[in-house]
Amino acid sequence: MEFSSQHQECLFDLLEWRRDVRHFSSEAIDPELLAKLEASVDLSPSVGNSRPWRIVRVSEEKNRAAVIKSFEKQNQVASLEYDDEARKEYMALKLAGLIDAPVHLAFFTELDPAEGRGLGRQTMPETLVYSTVMAIYTYWLYARSLNIGVGWVSIIDPEEIKNILEVDESWQLTAYLCVGYPKMHDDTPELHRAGWQEDTRSVWIDR
Amino acid sequence: MEFSSQHQECLFDLLEWRRDVRHFSSEAIDPELLAKLEASVDLSPSVGNSRPWRIVRVSEEKNRAAVIKSFEKQNQVASLEYDDEARKEYMALKLAGLIDAPVHLAFFTELDPAEGRGLGRQTMPETLVYSTVMAIYTYWLYARSLNIGVGWVSIIDPEEIKNILEVDESWQLTAYLCVGYPKMHDDTPELHRAGWQEDTRSVWIDR
Repeated sequence: MEFSSQHQECLFDLLEWRRDVRHFSSEAIDPELLAKLEASVDLSPSVGNSRPWRIVRVSEEKNRAAVIKSFEKQNQVASLEYDDEARKEYMALKLAGLIDAPVHLAFFTELDPAEGRGLGRQTMPETLVYSTVMAIYTYWLYARSLNIGVGWVSIIDPEEIKNILEVDESWQLTAYLCVGYPKMHDDTPELHRAGWQEDTRSVWIDR
Repeated sequence: MEFSSQHQECLFDLLEWRRDVRHFSSEAIDPELLAKLEASVDLSPSVGNSRPWRIVRVSEEKNRAAVIKSFEKQNQVASLEYDDEARKEYMALKLAGLIDAPVHLAFFTELDPAEGRGLGRQTMPETLVYSTVMAIYTYWLYARSLNIGVGWVSIIDPEEIKNILEVDESWQLTAYLCVGYPKMHDDTPELHRAGWQEDTRSVWIDR
């Protein structure tokens, strides 16, 4: 397999236009398209081929409502960390699209999978969770190629989410995602537009 | 921006043919191409736009040699976790291409960046490291589009690597990568070919 400039350009487009989406249309996603998107996760790398991701589609109304309530509480708590002026800025940001997004996903990591037979994770067991993070990013990029948006909600209490969803004890929450069609398309991230944080250059050094 | 089937197919090819490369040609990578690849990292997502990745190009001979020595020791230790038969299998796997790969990179995470102003990481501070993991995956996929291979070496002691490279105290090692032209192209991962671990289906459940 030799990759061409077309592959480079397509990937570059996707990377450049990937956004953390917070404004969703409530339009449902076609189930076949959703199945195709879900299948992309299978192509993710994982330490020792352990594939430790465990994914929960959160669709029961009571569960969605409990997650939203939990987010709102944690968001309020987080806002208290800022002084008055920064708090005003913080509260003006729209930090999650939990209410509108038609699909909610909770990505967990199985912390003791048989698969992979322990390979590659004795000195750095955190590579299991890192594998799940890459599965999330695979899903995120592939969603983008299907014109579907993903928003990563990190202002949540992982234990609360785990309790709401009643999953296995050995599963640890890695991320909670909102998925749906974005209300708008923009190559400028919301945190730039809102003046919260501009891009800085990546730091590279030589040793 | 509307993405087309071409974007979907190009991304799918890259995901399908991405490999964790352990067999490298020692052929150098053109510096301009390498700079283009390095720039792809800037397009990665990060919590609160904090961009906490700090990347070290490891090119001094004494540093490369020290990393290789450290890997060999940890690999030996890791092999002792298996019984005789599995250990034979383990030792037959080629687990790192550290000697041949022309480029070594150490990806660290700054654990207390000013950038992002704390946004989104109060309840889940681990999202900083997750941002670095996605930067690594961005680099990995973009490398693949340039026909360059990446191998993630996880059988190392993060503190040893940090000491060898003498970086800031607040940097935590996230990954050590080998980068170069692969000696062969294969859509079958080495761990399948070697019979170590077949693919399992991703687990999806509903709640």
